[in-house]
Amino acid sequence: MATSSFSSNEIEQLQKGCYYEWMSLQAKHIVDLKEALTSQRSNKNDRKLREVVDKIVNDFQKYTERRSELSHRACSSYFAPSWNSSLENGLLWMGGCRPSSFIRIIYAMCGSQTETQLIQYLLKIDENVHESHGDGSMSALTSTQLGQINELHMKVIKKEDDVSKKAANLQEDVADMPISVTAYATDSVEAGVVVEDALDKYEECLSLLMAEADELRFKTLRKIVEVMTPVQAAEFLLADKRLHVSLHEWGRVREERGLGCGCGCARARG
Amino acid sequence: MATSSFSSNEIEQLQKGCYYEWMSLQAKHIVDLKEALTSQRSNKNDRKLREVVDKIVNDFQKYTERRSELSHRACSSYFAPSWNSSLENGLLWMGGCRPSSFIRIIYAMCGSQTETQLIQYLLKIDENVHESHGDGSMSALTSTQLGQINELHMKVIKKEDDVSKKAANLQEDVADMPISVTAYATDSVEAGVVVEDALDKYEECLSLLMAEADELRFKTLRKIVEVMTPVQAAEFLLADKRLHVSLHEWGRVREERGLGCGCGCARARG
Repeated sequence: MATSSFSSNEIEQLQKGCYYEWMSLQAKHIVDLKEALTSQRSNKNDRKLREVVDKIVNDFQKYTERRSELSHRACSSYFAPSWNSSLENGLLWMGGCRPSSFIRIIYAMCGSQTETQLIQYLLKIDENVHESHGDGSMSALTSTQLGQINELHMKVIKKEDDVSKKAANLQEDVADMPISVTAYATDSVEAGVVVEDALDKYEECLSLLMAEADELRFKTLRKIVEVMTPVQAAEFLLADKRLHVSLHEWGRVREERGLGCGCGCARARG
Repeated sequence: MATSSFSSNEIEQLQKGCYYEWMSLQAKHIVDLKEALTSQRSNKNDRKLREVVDKIVNDFQKYTERRSELSHRACSSYFAPSWNSSLENGLLWMGGCRPSSFIRIIYAMCGSQTETQLIQYLLKIDENVHESHGDGSMSALTSTQLGQINELHMKVIKKEDDVSKKAANLQEDVADMPISVTAYATDSVEAGVVVEDALDKYEECLSLLMAEADELRFKTLRKIVEVMTPVQAAEFLLADKRLHVSLHEWGRVREERGLGCGCGCARARG
C-alpha cells in the first residue's frame, strides 16, 4: 500500500495499529505453541508443531514487510515508538530487538534446563521436569546444533555491527552539510526546502536500514528453527514471544507504578 | 542530590526540567557567543572569547553531572525522552549526540567556508564573507590542527564503538537469565522480585554507560576547543548549539505539521 498520501500523524497511527495487531498475533502464537507442544507430548507427532513454527516465522516476515511499507519517510518513530515504555525503547536496536538476543535466549534456556536436570539428578527426583522450564529439549541440544548456533551467533554479531556502523554514519551525516551549515547560518527556526529534503532523505535511509535489520532478525529466526528439532524450535519461539510480551507489560507496569503513586514508595525506585 | 526517594514519574519530571534548563542555557550561549565574536572582530582581543568558550565547556560538564545524578535507576527515559521529537530520538546515541558528530560539524563548516571563499575569489567579489558562514576561521584551520582533529576523530570513533559494544552486551543480557527464563516460566504479567531486581540492575548499568558516553562527549568538546583558536572554538560551539536547537525545533515543527493537518498535504510526507 502506498503511504505517500498520508500525513505523518496518520502514518504513526497506522504504525501503532500494525504494532498492536502484531502483539495480538503474538498472544495467539503463544496459545498455538502451547497447544501444539502439549499435543506433541501425547502423540509424539511433529507435523502440527512444524506447521505452527513455520507459520510463526512467516508471520514475522509479513510483519516486517508491513513495517517497511509504513516506515518510508516516517521511520524515526520506529526508533522510539510512543506505544513502547521507556524500558522497551532503551532496549531497542534499529527499531526492534537485537537478532543476537534470540541466541542468548537459547543459551539461557539451555543453561536453565541443564541446571534443573542436574538438581533433579542430584536429588534423585523421579518426576518430569517442571513444565515451566519446558520439557528439557533445550538441554538436549547436540554439540552439532550448539556449534551451528554458535557459528550463527558470531555471524549475527558481525552483521549487527555492520548495520550499527551504517546507522552511525547516517547519524553523523546529519551533522554535515547542508543541515549543520543551514543551522549555523540562521537564527530562524524555519528549516527551509534544502533542510527538509535532507531530513526526508535521512528518514528514507533510516527506513532502508531498519528493513536491513528486520531482514537480519527474520533470517536469524529462520536459521535457528532450521537448526532445531520442531520441539526445540517451538520452545524457543515460546520463550521469545513471552519475553517480548512480558517486557512490554513489565515496562508498562513499572511506568504506571511510578505515575500512579508519586509518594516515593515504588519498589523499583525505592 | 539523592534521587532514591523519588518516584519514577517525579524523576522524569526532574529530567525534563533539567533538559529545558539546558536548552535555555544553550539559547543564552548562542547570544553570548555571537556578542563575543562581534566584539572580537572589532577589538581583536581574544580574552572575552576564551572566557565564554571555557564557560560553555564547563556548563556542559555540569549538565552531564546533573544528568548522571538523575539517571540512577531511571536511565531508560534518557534513551528516548518524551520531550524529544521522533526525529531527535532517532538521532540519539547513548542518550545524546554522537561525539563524532562534533567533528563532522567542523568538517562541514570548513568545507562550506572554503567553498564560499573560492566562489568569492572566482567572482572577484571584494566584500566580507557573508556573516552567516562565519568569518572564515574554519577554512583557516592549519594542517597541524586538521591533523589533530582527524586523529581525535579516529580515537572518538573507536571509543564510541567500545561504548556501543558494552550497550549491545547489556541489551543482550536482558535476553539471558533470569529475565528470559522467568518470562518463559509464567503466563503472569507480574514481574516478581527477581526480574525487578534484574531490571533495576540493568537501568543502573545503563546509567553508568550514559555517564561514560557523556564523559566522551565532554572530553571531545574540550579537546576540540583546545586545538582551536578562540575564534574557531567560538564558531564551532555556535554551530553545534544552533544545530542542536534547530533539530529540536525542526523535529517539533515536522511533527506538528503532521498532527495539525491530517489532509495529506504535509510537504515532508507528501
